[in-house]
Order: sequence, then C-alpha cells, then structure tokens
Amino acid sequence: MDGHFLIGARAVARDATFSGYDPSRGEQIAPAFSISTAEDVAEACRLAAEAFDAFRDTDPDQRARFLETIADNIDALGDALVARAMQESGLPQARLTGERGRTSGQLRLFATHLRRGDWAGVTFDTPLPDRAPLPRGDLRQRRIAIGPVAVFGASNFPLAFSVAGGDTASALAAGCPVVVKGHPAHPGTTRMVADAIRDAVAACGLPEGVFSLVQGPANELGAVLVTDPRIKAVGFTGSRGGGLALMKLAGERPEPIPVYAEMSSINPVILFPQALAARGEALAKAYVGSLTMGAGQFCTNPGIVIGIAGPDLDRFVATATQALEQAQPQVMLTKGIHAAYDNGVSALEANPSVETLARGAEGTGCTLGRAALFITDADRFLADPSLAHEVFGASSVVIRAKDMAQIAALIEGLEGQLTATLQIDEGDYETAAPLVPLLERKVGRILANGWPTGVEVSTAIVHGGPFPATSDPRSTSVGTAAIERFLRPVCYQDLPDALLPKAVRSANPLNLPRRIDGTLEVA
Amino acid sequence: MDGHFLIGARAVARDATFSGYDPSRGEQIAPAFSISTAEDVAEACRLAAEAFDAFRDTDPDQRARFLETIADNIDALGDALVARAMQESGLPQARLTGERGRTSGQLRLFATHLRRGDWAGVTFDTPLPDRAPLPRGDLRQRRIAIGPVAVFGASNFPLAFSVAGGDTASALAAGCPVVVKGHPAHPGTTRMVADAIRDAVAACGLPEGVFSLVQGPANELGAVLVTDPRIKAVGFTGSRGGGLALMKLAGERPEPIPVYAEMSSINPVILFPQALAARGEALAKAYVGSLTMGAGQFCTNPGIVIGIAGPDLDRFVATATQALEQAQPQVMLTKGIHAAYDNGVSALEANPSVETLARGAEGTGCTLGRAALFITDADRFLADPSLAHEVFGASSVVIRAKDMAQIAALIEGLEGQLTATLQIDEGDYETAAPLVPLLERKVGRILANGWPTGVEVSTAIVHGGPFPATSDPRSTSVGTAAIERFLRPVCYQDLPDALLPKAVRSANPLNLPRRIDGTLEVA
Repeated sequence: MDGHFLIGARAVARDATFSGYDPSRGEQIAPAFSISTAEDVAEACRLAAEAFDAFRDTDPDQRARFLETIADNIDALGDALVARAMQESGLPQARLTGERGRTSGQLRLFATHLRRGDWAGVTFDTPLPDRAPLPRGDLRQRRIAIGPVAVFGASNFPLAFSVAGGDTASALAAGCPVVVKGHPAHPGTTRMVADAIRDAVAACGLPEGVFSLVQGPANELGAVLVTDPRIKAVGFTGSRGGGLALMKLAGERPEPIPVYAEMSSINPVILFPQALAARGEALAKAYVGSLTMGAGQFCTNPGIVIGIAGPDLDRFVATATQALEQAQPQVMLTKGIHAAYDNGVSALEANPSVETLARGAEGTGCTLGRAALFITDADRFLADPSLAHEVFGASSVVIRAKDMAQIAALIEGLEGQLTATLQIDEGDYETAAPLVPLLERKVGRILANGWPTGVEVSTAIVHGGPFPATSDPRSTSVGTAAIERFLRPVCYQDLPDALLPKAVRSANPLNLPRRIDGTLEVA
Repeated sequence: MDGHFLIGARAVARDATFSGYDPSRGEQIAPAFSISTAEDVAEACRLAAEAFDAFRDTDPDQRARFLETIADNIDALGDALVARAMQESGLPQARLTGERGRTSGQLRLFATHLRRGDWAGVTFDTPLPDRAPLPRGDLRQRRIAIGPVAVFGASNFPLAFSVAGGDTASALAAGCPVVVKGHPAHPGTTRMVADAIRDAVAACGLPEGVFSLVQGPANELGAVLVTDPRIKAVGFTGSRGGGLALMKLAGERPEPIPVYAEMSSINPVILFPQALAARGEALAKAYVGSLTMGAGQFCTNPGIVIGIAGPDLDRFVATATQALEQAQPQVMLTKGIHAAYDNGVSALEANPSVETLARGAEGTGCTLGRAALFITDADRFLADPSLAHEVFGASSVVIRAKDMAQIAALIEGLEGQLTATLQIDEGDYETAAPLVPLLERKVGRILANGWPTGVEVSTAIVHGGPFPATSDPRSTSVGTAAIERFLRPVCYQDLPDALLPKAVRSANPLNLPRRIDGTLEVA
C-alpha cells in the first residue's frame, strides 16, 4: 500500500503525511498517508462535476452493475481488508467480517432497488386538450440525481459507514458522483476500499470523476470539501459537534445545500411493568450485552433505561450491575474517542445527581474502555440536562420513575432520538399504547422486545430521527430509502419524445413503474 | 368583518392595528386589523402542538373530508371573496375568480391524493426468523406528519398561495396543524379564508389548534413564529431577501427546521432557430402576452428570452417591441412591489449594458406598472450579474447569442430557476437535445412551445428548483408531491399489532397501498 489518495483514477502523493494508529498496541501503522490539499479537493470536485451528467444518465441497470462490481471487489479484498480494519479500529475479527458482508450486501441491495425503479418516481398527467377554460398539457415527472455528494467516513463502522458505506452506496445509486473524505482513524482500510471503487469505475467504463478519495487529519479539509460550489449534498455520521459544524458551513454557502448528518442519540429503553416482573433478569443480561457490544460504540447504543421504581426494577438493576462488573474492557476506536468516553464517564461519576452502580473489569492494554452503569431518578434526570447527553461508548443510566405519567414526561423531555425500545408483555399493551404517538414524535424507529444496536439494512428500516439524532428527520441513512436524500424532482411539460430522457419516454424503454393519472402501472 | 385574527377557534382583538390598502385607488380599506403579539403567536403554536397528535391520527379519509369542507366553504364565500381580493390586490375579477377555483380545486386534489394513500409510504420487510447468522425482525415503515407548520401568505396569489393555498393544503393533508402569518397586503381576504378553515375545523370535529391565523405588517411577527420551538417546518413564497431571512432564522434555532421558500426566478425562454424562423412573430406576441399577464407578477414570468442573433431574432424583437408598446399599464399588488419594480426597471434603463426596446403605454391611476422590454447580447449579460436578477413585474430582457454554444454558456451561468422554456420545431430537436441535461440541472420544470406562466396543479407538476428558485430543490410547492415536504418516515420493529398505528397494522384497516418485500400491493 502506497499511502496515496485518489483524485479520480489517479493516485496522488503529497509531502505532508499522517499515519494510521493501532489503538490496541498504541502505535502508529505504516505506511504514511499523504494529506490532500485544498487544490486536490477542488480537482476532485471538478472531476465529479464533469462526470455528473454522464453518470446520472446511465441506465439503472448500469448503475446496479457498477454497485455490484464494487461489492465483488470489496469481497475480493478478503482477509487482508479485515486484518487492516482490525489493526486500525481495534474491533474484533468476527465483527469486521460481518461488517464487510453488510457493506457488500448493502451495495447489492441498492442494485436490486435500482432495478425495481420506483425510486425514479415516474409520474404522468396525460393531456386534457379539451378541458375548459384551459387545456392541460402533457406533464411528466421523474427524480434525478442532485449533484456531486461529499461523504465523510465514520470511525465506528470502518466499512459499513465509511468509504463504500450507506451514504456512498445511496449517492452512487442515485447517480451522484461521490468525493469521500476518509476518516483519519483508518486510512489504510479507507484506501483499500477506495481502490475497490476506483477499479469498479474503470471496469464499468464510467468517467473517473464518479469517485475520488481525499485524506487528512484536519477538519479544515472537510470544510474545503463542503464549501466547494460543485458539491450539492453532504453525508456524515459522527459527533454532534462535527455535524453542527458541517450544517453551518453548508447553510452559509452562497448556495446552501442539504447536510445529512447522523449525530447523537441516547436511545431510550422502557421497561414495562409486566415484562419487568416476568423476565427482569433476562432483560438485564441482554441489556448489558447490547450496551457493551463493540465497546458500546454504536449510534444506537442504549444510553438510558427507564422503569418504574420497585422491587422488580431493583432486581433488574442488581442483575445488570453484576453483569456489567464482569464485562471485560475493550479496545476503543481511537485515542480521542477513548478520552471523550473517559471524560463523559468521569463527569457522571462526579455528578451528585447519579450514583455509579458498576464499572466493568479493569484490564491492561491500550485505549481500553471500561463499561459504566449509573442510576438516577426521573426528577433528577429531568432537572439536569447534562444527563441526557450522549456518552459515546459503553455507558448507560438507569432511570427510576414514579409511574407511567413520569415516564411519559421523561420521553417528552428528550431531544430527538434514532430509536426507542419497549420491553413489553401482553399485559403491558394497554399501558404502552399511549406512549406510541409520543415516541413517534421523538424517534425514527420504535422497537419491541429487542435491542436497538442491530440495524437491519432493508427497505423498511429507518436510521434517522428528529434533531439532534440527525440534521434532517425526513430521511434515513440506512436502507434503500436513503437514496431519496440524493434525488430531486424534475417536470417535463409538452416535450417531444425525442427530447425526453429515457425514464419518461412514452415507450418506457427503461421499464420503470409509472404512475399515470394516479394509477400505478408496473412494467 | 371585524378585523380580528384567529387563535384556534377564538377571534382575538388587540389595540394596535393596521389596514389593507387598495392599490388601484391609493387608499386604505376598512376595517382596521388587529396586530397579533408575540404572545398570540406563542398561544397559536401551543394550540397547534396540543392538536398535533390527534390531528395526525385522523384517518386519511377524515382529513380528505376536512379539506373538502374547506373547499366548499371557500366556494361558498362567492363574489364577496373575489370583490375583497380585487380591492386588496388590484387584480382583475376574472383572474381572481379563476384563482378561487384553483384554490378549492387544489384542496380537493389533495383530498383525492389522501384517499389514494401512496403518500403514507407503507413498506414492510417481513420477518426472516431462520436467517443466519441473525434473524430479521418484522419491520414496517410509514410516513407521519412532521409537526406544526408555519405558512406565510404570498402577496401575488391572495387565494391560491395564501391562507388556504398550496402550502396550507399540503401541510393539512399531511396531518400538520398550520399557523398562518397572513400577508399584510390582503388582510381582509386573509380573514375571510381563515374563517372558512376555522369553520371546517369545527364542522369536522377537529381540535381548534389545527389552524390559527396571526396578522401584522412587521417582519418580526414572522420571526417569532419561525423561531417558536413547536413549529417544525415553514412554507413561504416571496422575495429572495425574505426567504433567506427565514432560512437563517430556522437554521439558527436550537432545533433547526426545514424551510420551503419559493423565492426568485427569471425563467429563461430559448428560441430555437427553426421555430424562430417559422413563427417568430407569433412567438413574440405570445411572449409579450405571458410577460404582461397579471402585471407580470408571477414567479414564472419569462424574465429573459434567448435567441441567436440574426434577421429572425430581429423580426421577433420588432414584433415584441411593438406589442409591448401597446401593453396597457396595470395596477400592481402593493406600493412596495410597485416601487421595487420601478427601481428595477430604472436600473436597467440606466445600465449601459442593455438597451431599452420599449415601455408599455402610460396611464393615469395609482400603483400602475408599465411593462418594460430590454435587449442585450450574451457577452454583456455574462459580464454583468445584475442582469440576471429578478425584476418582479412585467420586465424582460432579450439576449442575443452568437450561437448555440453561447446559449449553453448562458444557461450554465444562470442560478437555479423554476422553469426553462424551449420554443422548438422538429428541425430544432437535434440542436436542443444537448441542452436538456443542462437545463435539468438548473430548473424544476422544462417546457416546450408554451409559456411558463401557467402552473398546472396536478400530480406530475414541479414548482420548485435549485437555489435560489427555492431553498430546497428536493420538493415542489405546487401539486400533490408538495405533501412530502411535511412527512417523515418512522419504522416499527416487532411491535405487536395492538400497539401499531392503523396505517401499518397487518389487516390494513385503512386500505393503504403497501410495498411488501419490494412488491407493491394495492388495496
């Protein structure tokens, strides 16, 4: 591996470099990676803009084959990719092997979605030449790609939310060229996956500007990318601070553009009385399992658990405490994330509004996160807004409420979230029902009797939610609906067939499903 | 008419007042209208938030009947509504009668759209309990209303883009309560239509907070509305300055919210050689007709016309000049719009980069707009960005280009637009084809051999486009797709039927079309 970044098809070296870092050994990893300059970013954006019309004009099937080629190329990277990602992230082999499958699987799912064709939103109003007082023309709508997209790799999914992750897959599916700013925590993994995409661009005969990769450790590089006038949308998964900074940059451009930032969530879990009575101990163990999985480094980590005070909740807490004490320390993704986690946990330990129930086992090694479990009551939680801030990592707070009314008040007081989880038995349904509309207003996904940390990649999933869970609650960053973030409608009125794009020609050469005068015609 | 505003069902009076103004007579119109206070706005938003869950939980058919009731109530206002709107806007009777029909027709179209049910986006991934390594749960997605919406009435469509216009109709259809800030140019028309909505709220047994109207002449009132934390989206049609101010306010809230602002467009018309040769004179007359209709006060007014220099274009220009000189002056909507128009035209008259071809006939009366026609060439147009600024009213610039390449350069240099119009004959198709992808990037609607000033209200229409035509190119403010601006997806994972909203229950009690594992099932 040569440590270059990619401007279109070209691997570019610069004098200034940075390195990957192995958090489990506490040491830098070779090779040194070139840091892209502002001029490199501009050149990547120029190539993207140049490629845009040709790329978006490809048939859906062509783009589907392109996505499948990327998927094949990623799969072909085999163990070498997993090994590099392990080294750069401290994540275990099984998790990264699974994540590699999720990444290529997600590309293939978008290929299937492209071939189905509904995403194109083809809609006709047929002419009404004899209508009085005015005739109606021939109106045809379809959705087209929004333009070149900037994607920021996320640290916590070095494959599935990084270079070829959900943002890139959905933007490419839409027909948008992508310029990726690699996450500096995994530059080698980044480069390997970037090569897989570049090779697919070449193999599919697409213009090189369809994909570029810029690398570097400084936020300024991302700012240059987001403010380039040729970029028309941004995909980001990361911290609230990072997301807010990008939203501000994008909003202050001469031409403001949409930012899809997935930022911050504490994912409330509500323990309903019957479920708590019937299976409190099993719930406690599963809770700690969900909390500590992957060192807790999930956007959907259960950061608060709410139950009604009483002996059942006490038993849940006792079991969770015991389980958490046995949780082994795990390597966290980066020194920065580890330091932020330790600070967050220390702040909770020092906060008189909460009691520390347990810390996970200590260990010897680098960058180790020790799980942490706290407890408070609803009055104190409501009185101290800092308790509702996300501590990224395996830290969670149990909240004792007086009754269901107070649980409702707790939920009403929360900011927007990615998920809410109900632990319920049949006897709880009546109690739970009034909470559902409230939760709908607060979250993107409501789940029952599971844990929020598994996010299915599918057509019905929503990985999104009201601010600050995301910057834009009208979308999802996981699943096929993510493509809609990068499309915009265009209407063609009375255009002759010769001038219409294939998607809206009368003969329907792309075999797209069409809604004609309100009725869906499946090709 | 008592001059009160409406906080829910309640008509409220305040000491401070403002008045409507008859631009054709240059005098104030009784009665005086109470100016809402910041506290009134807060109370309207509180009622809207309180009504939200109940309103969005209504069945689509219930909301459809509500929209139809509003439409019936507006129709029942009969000539009194048209008379008041004429007085307050200076627009002629035929236009306002048509606009009244458009307004009630648009409400009825949304009722039809609600009953079709696709807008709900119901999508199921059925469970895969035996999938390895992990089973898939039961995932169901639907789209819900985003929350209470602030709508700003527009001056130039006192009915169709005002209190019960496209923004209000689409927001109510989505299940969002609406707080309207009435346009101060037509407070009486505003109040009449607001009563029609309030009466429909009561007749349909809906909570009063579903609709409120605040009134007042100052921008500060709108700022209070947009920054109220209970407001979750904004609909606006008006000036670029106004739209940008709302975008800034909305983006700087603790919880940023989407703003749908339809702002500024000069709607290029391209005259292709064969069409120009075959029917240049007819085109010139139709152009002046489109330009001067309604005193040119349309978002889709043809602000620039581009053709290749030569005798055919000269003939077009000569005919257009003659036609425009005969254009009678027309009363403009407000003193402010009239002054801005006069300033814009004066700036063009004084600009050495353009020549004045013609001014419309002079007249005696108040607030009269005299049409204006200018000519320049492409080099000068490209060199002076001020020539691409919208002059709201019947002002237009003809641009002489050297060839098609320069026409493409002109289009490439334009900001985002609502529309682009091609005047083409069959012999022009080959010449026109390369421009279509370029126009797709620049505009929301491309039309051939018509004029942009008629905007159909239908399912395939797009009244939108890249910035600064609108603040958000992913949407339209006219037609049924406008509902999507006010919806967001929610996913339900493994929720028992007893806890699911009706839209995603297994038995499909609302008879909604559903996409199940990728296949559409129409109920």
